[in-house]
Amino acid sequence: MVASLATVVRSAVFVVLMGFCCVILPYSNALAQNDPLPSWNSGAVRTSITDFVARVTTPGGADFVPPAERIAVFDNDGTLWCEQPIYFQAAFALDRVKAMAPHHPEWKSQQQFKAFLSGDKKALAEQGEKGLLTLVTAAHSGMTTDEFAKSVADWLATAQHPRFNRPYNELVYQPMVELLAYLRTNGFKTFIVSGGGVEFMRVWAEKAYGIPPEQVIGSSGVTKYQLDTAGRPSLLKTAKVQFIDDGPGKPVGINMMIGRRPILAFGNSDGDHQMLQWTMAGSGARFAGIVHHTDAAREYAYDHPSKVGQLDKAWEEAKAKGWTVVDMKQDWNRVFAFEP
Amino acid sequence: MVASLATVVRSAVFVVLMGFCCVILPYSNALAQNDPLPSWNSGAVRTSITDFVARVTTPGGADFVPPAERIAVFDNDGTLWCEQPIYFQAAFALDRVKAMAPHHPEWKSQQQFKAFLSGDKKALAEQGEKGLLTLVTAAHSGMTTDEFAKSVADWLATAQHPRFNRPYNELVYQPMVELLAYLRTNGFKTFIVSGGGVEFMRVWAEKAYGIPPEQVIGSSGVTKYQLDTAGRPSLLKTAKVQFIDDGPGKPVGINMMIGRRPILAFGNSDGDHQMLQWTMAGSGARFAGIVHHTDAAREYAYDHPSKVGQLDKAWEEAKAKGWTVVDMKQDWNRVFAFEP
Repeated sequence: MVASLATVVRSAVFVVLMGFCCVILPYSNALAQNDPLPSWNSGAVRTSITDFVARVTTPGGADFVPPAERIAVFDNDGTLWCEQPIYFQAAFALDRVKAMAPHHPEWKSQQQFKAFLSGDKKALAEQGEKGLLTLVTAAHSGMTTDEFAKSVADWLATAQHPRFNRPYNELVYQPMVELLAYLRTNGFKTFIVSGGGVEFMRVWAEKAYGIPPEQVIGSSGVTKYQLDTAGRPSLLKTAKVQFIDDGPGKPVGINMMIGRRPILAFGNSDGDHQMLQWTMAGSGARFAGIVHHTDAAREYAYDHPSKVGQLDKAWEEAKAKGWTVVDMKQDWNRVFAFEP
Repeated sequence: MVASLATVVRSAVFVVLMGFCCVILPYSNALAQNDPLPSWNSGAVRTSITDFVARVTTPGGADFVPPAERIAVFDNDGTLWCEQPIYFQAAFALDRVKAMAPHHPEWKSQQQFKAFLSGDKKALAEQGEKGLLTLVTAAHSGMTTDEFAKSVADWLATAQHPRFNRPYNELVYQPMVELLAYLRTNGFKTFIVSGGGVEFMRVWAEKAYGIPPEQVIGSSGVTKYQLDTAGRPSLLKTAKVQFIDDGPGKPVGINMMIGRRPILAFGNSDGDHQMLQWTMAGSGARFAGIVHHTDAAREYAYDHPSKVGQLDKAWEEAKAKGWTVVDMKQDWNRVFAFEP
């Protein structure tokens, strides 16, 4: 993306640095049962999904869509997995900076690192987004893509969510895992379209959701192809931003990476608004869904007016146009697979 | 890609502006026959392909690769379809400028357009790459993605290759169409990774090769999400470069778009060198192939030292490391499906 540094910094910070919550669920579990959506309560929301799928998959029906065109796109943070109290990728970045600190004595004299590493939250807050971005960038660049992937895998194997005391990748929403599998069983190709870092998500998305790396779309940094002295190639992650897959960047990313307009889209915040609009503007049968966080007991209740997962403009359009709004508390009988 | 304008201009011109050849072949034709590769002559080249596929698909074998990891990547120009006498996308762009000219009276006073539209090749040549880029940019921007796709489809329906007198999309290599289908039958996922424009290729690649839009990776321009007064969204193609998928950009593009290292790669020029290196540097069984243009009678004989399809460094590495080099004249009993 060609963008001013200020825009890039703001966007990257917005994407990566808000909000903390997981159970790796074999994504095929849902298929093992007669009801493909056992975690969804009966009602208008569930029916809107199953009716849509029936319409687009009935050969000869007015709304039939050939399998190759059954593209379904899902936001990740707050739609497929938890995003509270901070985006999990931000939690990763902050933990990573702590782990890397012993190897970076020069950080002791740099304001942002000094404030964060000494636990001086006030000093860190005073530096605002710029200070946080410095930390995130440190955790995401200056290493090869293979080294980065290993750092994510290592973190997932040890880090725990502060409230649920479980590995972060166990905090995926069981009803959405079932929905992804249900769609694939019905010939859909499922994609993640997230503001999060694409290389962060690909490490765990296949196991968590059954979505392979090539169907994960996200924000990315510029990588540089290099050969070592033995002629072995690697890709070095630089600190430059390549593409921000958020807000109006989502339809742009869909066009660039998929090249076909989805017929189903699910999001949970204004960062998904344009993706939902873009999906609904196509011809034929269309489905737009929004996950509304209403369950403080089992997950979190938020959305508006919190900045994390802000749902304002998309909410208004959903109400005006009759898009499906999932009330977590009402529509899901289970949020996480680890619930008793 | 964050790059200097000069680099971008040079790269885009290199990618888009060289060289003029096609038969739409139902890609499943090959499957209808007992021999999945009927256009390939027997010999070491054909055997290197079938042996590799047998090794990676034999359960329990030392080189077995799970289907999800059977990623195969193919360059397009000169590897899957003809690229002579100029890249077909350049032919499209020049034809398009002629078609657009009546609606752009201002072009009459602009040097590059004036030289081209009046047929003054000498004046156009004097302006070098910059002059050509101006024309290409005019054909590829200032319209929505839908309008652009229609302009490509309209061109394919009417334009003809100057030597073969056939629509350009009939000039795909029949042996490669068979190879793509053969790989898919064996559980591979086939991708195009080309320096050409991704939105140009996606219009015809699925019909020509059986490769869906989401598996076409190429160079791209920045698009801008916009809403019209009625609230209908579209993506406007701007004149800015987003990403150049050529040379070292190919492994970068593969990492960004696929996120998994291919186990098989095919190219035909130095623009594919790094993609071949990147593929071969992974662990386990690997295959690298190069199409060598040796058949002036049925197609073209070139590669080196012509600038179009230059094959120099990749050729040296292929010889040194024993990569498969396809000699079109010797290894293919048919180049185009329309041959008698």
